[in-house]
Amino acid sequence: MTGGVDRLAIVGLGLIGSSIARGARTYELAREIVAIDRDAGVIERVRALGLAETATCDPAEGVAGADLVILCVPVGAVGTVAAEIAPHLKPGAVVSDVGSVKAAVVAAVTPHLSETNVFVPAHPVAGTEYSGPDSGFATLFTNRWCILTPAEDADPAAVERVQALWQGLGAIVETMTPEHHDLVLAITSHVPHLIAYNIVGTAADLEEVTQSEVIKFSAGGFRDFTRIAASDPTMWRDIFLTNREAVLEVLGRFNEDLSALSRAIRWGDGEALHDLFTRTRAIRRGIVAMGQETAEPDFGRARGATPPASDRA
Amino acid sequence: MTGGVDRLAIVGLGLIGSSIARGARTYELAREIVAIDRDAGVIERVRALGLAETATCDPAEGVAGADLVILCVPVGAVGTVAAEIAPHLKPGAVVSDVGSVKAAVVAAVTPHLSETNVFVPAHPVAGTEYSGPDSGFATLFTNRWCILTPAEDADPAAVERVQALWQGLGAIVETMTPEHHDLVLAITSHVPHLIAYNIVGTAADLEEVTQSEVIKFSAGGFRDFTRIAASDPTMWRDIFLTNREAVLEVLGRFNEDLSALSRAIRWGDGEALHDLFTRTRAIRRGIVAMGQETAEPDFGRARGATPPASDRA
Repeated sequence: MTGGVDRLAIVGLGLIGSSIARGARTYELAREIVAIDRDAGVIERVRALGLAETATCDPAEGVAGADLVILCVPVGAVGTVAAEIAPHLKPGAVVSDVGSVKAAVVAAVTPHLSETNVFVPAHPVAGTEYSGPDSGFATLFTNRWCILTPAEDADPAAVERVQALWQGLGAIVETMTPEHHDLVLAITSHVPHLIAYNIVGTAADLEEVTQSEVIKFSAGGFRDFTRIAASDPTMWRDIFLTNREAVLEVLGRFNEDLSALSRAIRWGDGEALHDLFTRTRAIRRGIVAMGQETAEPDFGRARGATPPASDRA
Repeated sequence: MTGGVDRLAIVGLGLIGSSIARGARTYELAREIVAIDRDAGVIERVRALGLAETATCDPAEGVAGADLVILCVPVGAVGTVAAEIAPHLKPGAVVSDVGSVKAAVVAAVTPHLSETNVFVPAHPVAGTEYSGPDSGFATLFTNRWCILTPAEDADPAAVERVQALWQGLGAIVETMTPEHHDLVLAITSHVPHLIAYNIVGTAADLEEVTQSEVIKFSAGGFRDFTRIAASDPTMWRDIFLTNREAVLEVLGRFNEDLSALSRAIRWGDGEALHDLFTRTRAIRRGIVAMGQETAEPDFGRARGATPPASDRA
């Protein structure tokens, strides 16, 4: 197996960790997979699903002898886990992660590692609104980008090992600095999640409109927001706490633009509205053209296939 | 045919109008369908697609003899069209519409109609991001709500005629006042569209992040917003101009909540974030349970089915 990993340890078997395990098995990227999770219930599911050769709650035991260790825990927990596993790493073992924030993760992990254990931070830009070991699947990363943010002086062989894994999982790898990553993700992921959480919260709290009305009439647009507002709460809390500056910066821009838009509505400036609404269509066309989105109407959502119930004999 | 319409005239053959035509044909809801559109290109498509028995650019000719006339034009144009058709309506003909705003539409249409032509405003809460006569389909309204906002003293037989059509198209009909409709739709549809348009515009304008990066990494959440931000610009301009007060009111609530959320991020209040992020999951569960949304991960989007391109022999 060219470029494959002998012993791959995955810490945290949620949506992402279990998808890596499934993909590594399907595409034969590692001789042996070790699953590590502090939650005994998760380890039980991992065993039932047959996701790994070895499954354990003990990180020290799990990482022993591994060539590549991938931390798939919420970014707020990654420093603690790094401290816990560091003494048990094989010399030369490469450590990576999958966190949605990179500068804070680098700062939390690097101090714990010895010189022979290179940290190659990674972020696969893929996911669904579901969590846990049952929600993963081998093709989650197919044709999705995975961003690496290695230190400038990182051992090229270590970076290559992580890159090969992600390419093997079907991802397209791109490299940038942790700081640029955090800004790019603030606009493409973090702030969108924040405003989705926010509008769903606003809707739930409006006294004049019942929750039942919000639910019934959600096909008018609202339901598109509820998908990402159903994402894992712990993971997202950690993202906002650790990427605070970039999120607040982008949110400031969002607010400025929204104020201008409110003003256009208040003063009846139809031209300004029409201009923006025309410009935004082009961005979606670009996303569809680049294979990052389906062109099917309504995301290709399944429609109620049942015929109308009323009598029209 | 019980409760069916003899001659159904549809003014404006876009996504909604052409879907009504297709559904009326499929479910045999009218003996004859007349398609009216001032755009000769649209009329040509209507003829090529065989959507109606008669297709004309002339509203006067088109509405003559119709029992039910449905205005499917942007809400900013509905008053002009009503003035144009009113003198040619058959006594007793019922007039309806499909606009996403109701109070302004009632004010624009009612003054033009004679006493025998009752206006029964309707709003099917359904749609896709595509526009034009080719984008419609017969099942667009299946299991979707359609809101009627008739005047309190409206002729029950006229209301019944419009209700029967929508039930025939597979919709579930609910009645409320125009003012309440406009507030409910401001939160479930109009403000969601506004903030989707806004975030897509903000992303396009950030100097530090390239448009190519926004497109590449959109699977992190951003692309969910681009669907509704690709909706018809003229239709949406008119909605914001005609439902100004409710939109600005709900937007004010959204802004208050977003300020509180920013404050929680700035001060590192993880508990407040986690609480909101947990609460919002319940709303999506309600929408899925009520059949208004698919439970499939990622909206059930088609995934790139191509296997990873890299060599892993």
